[in-house]
Amino acid sequence: MHRFFLPPECFKEDKVIFPDDIAHQIRRVLRLTAGDRVFVLDGSNNEMLVELEEVADFNVTGDIVSRKKNKAEPDVKVTMLVALTQRDKFEMILQKCTEIGASAIIPIITSRSLIQDFNKASSKLDRWRNIIREAAEQSGRGRIPELSSPLKYDTGLQNAAKKNDLLLMPWENEDGLTLKDKLSESTHRDHKTIAILIGPEGGFSYEEVQKAQQTGFVSLSLGPRILRMETAAMITLAFVLYDNNQMM
Amino acid sequence: MHRFFLPPECFKEDKVIFPDDIAHQIRRVLRLTAGDRVFVLDGSNNEMLVELEEVADFNVTGDIVSRKKNKAEPDVKVTMLVALTQRDKFEMILQKCTEIGASAIIPIITSRSLIQDFNKASSKLDRWRNIIREAAEQSGRGRIPELSSPLKYDTGLQNAAKKNDLLLMPWENEDGLTLKDKLSESTHRDHKTIAILIGPEGGFSYEEVQKAQQTGFVSLSLGPRILRMETAAMITLAFVLYDNNQMM
Repeated sequence: MHRFFLPPECFKEDKVIFPDDIAHQIRRVLRLTAGDRVFVLDGSNNEMLVELEEVADFNVTGDIVSRKKNKAEPDVKVTMLVALTQRDKFEMILQKCTEIGASAIIPIITSRSLIQDFNKASSKLDRWRNIIREAAEQSGRGRIPELSSPLKYDTGLQNAAKKNDLLLMPWENEDGLTLKDKLSESTHRDHKTIAILIGPEGGFSYEEVQKAQQTGFVSLSLGPRILRMETAAMITLAFVLYDNNQMM
Repeated sequence: MHRFFLPPECFKEDKVIFPDDIAHQIRRVLRLTAGDRVFVLDGSNNEMLVELEEVADFNVTGDIVSRKKNKAEPDVKVTMLVALTQRDKFEMILQKCTEIGASAIIPIITSRSLIQDFNKASSKLDRWRNIIREAAEQSGRGRIPELSSPLKYDTGLQNAAKKNDLLLMPWENEDGLTLKDKLSESTHRDHKTIAILIGPEGGFSYEEVQKAQQTGFVSLSLGPRILRMETAAMITLAFVLYDNNQMM
């Protein structure tokens, strides 16, 4: 069944008034009609079964048939700090990390990021938010992961350190501690907020690695095979959630 | 450093004669010159450091400086049976499953596969082999995962059952056993050959699920969030290798 996140102003007691863009999608793209049912989400973990009442050109409304809590959200909140990179790759990371279960995504500009222009990156925010919302709808989540404006590397590190209990950084030159070693430490399950820092294609500079370590990030190996940036992002997030029993 | 898989006929004692396509890449694309070094792989886990000797238009040769065994190959052999689907998605699965550590990939035609034409699918094999070889080179593997011609669903199931100790099938309607439950069974680490069956976008038909179960495949849940086909493929492979200590 189709799922839609709607803003708060769309809910009036037991009625739902769909905003124009979703009304268009319902009527013109999905060709649903009165009597069809969809799931509507308020973005705060509430999920409503809605029966379409009126499906007209500038007016699509529905009645809430039942309400329940969404159960797909992980208890552990993982924030992904992702170096800006080429469009396809970055958008794949947004989509896949949303499906897998990230709570927030922060684009960061590193010295080797392919995109260095802060304004250019910020202009993409609407497009990126749509990708994340659609992935959240498709994967059945109860909340839309937060997307922040792109941050400078140092600012990103400091914000993450303030807000998270555990700071992880996969690094291709780390040959000691693996992610699996780190996750098998008995204390790690006390962490309810975890940040994962993902470097760009060319890797972090040595200064960036040092800065991250000084801020409290633990550098980790992902094993003997060299993973591309987007694969490292997905796999690290998936392992952290899996290990915390938040994946399945 | 650049890495190249070469066929057996390219090795003459301590010399390497590069085939035309790679010679072209070395000279014209990468612009390497005599004295530069590359890694050469024979596809059987042997890795050679090679110094380029002659770099001419139809003749690129090198001297083997040292030899070692590649250490990036998992001990557990995982075969991915993947339903044919749209090009981008299928090619992403080939690339990512190679990086993550699959040993073999078998395209299969299910009733809901987007591509039903056997010949059309087979004509893509060269292109798919290149994607896999490049991903194997880039990720530092010692072998190139095998790619078979596309198989019909029933044939794929039967071949997999003959050749593998453990048969796994993520299924979106499975609400009992999770992949994590299955992998936590104490006996599973005795399995050295594992097949993973990945259904198409629209899921398996009920008959297909029954057939797979009758052939010995265990249907598994991947948790509360609904993963796209390509995400399910990568994540399942990664978890199986991780759990077997083959990922890190």
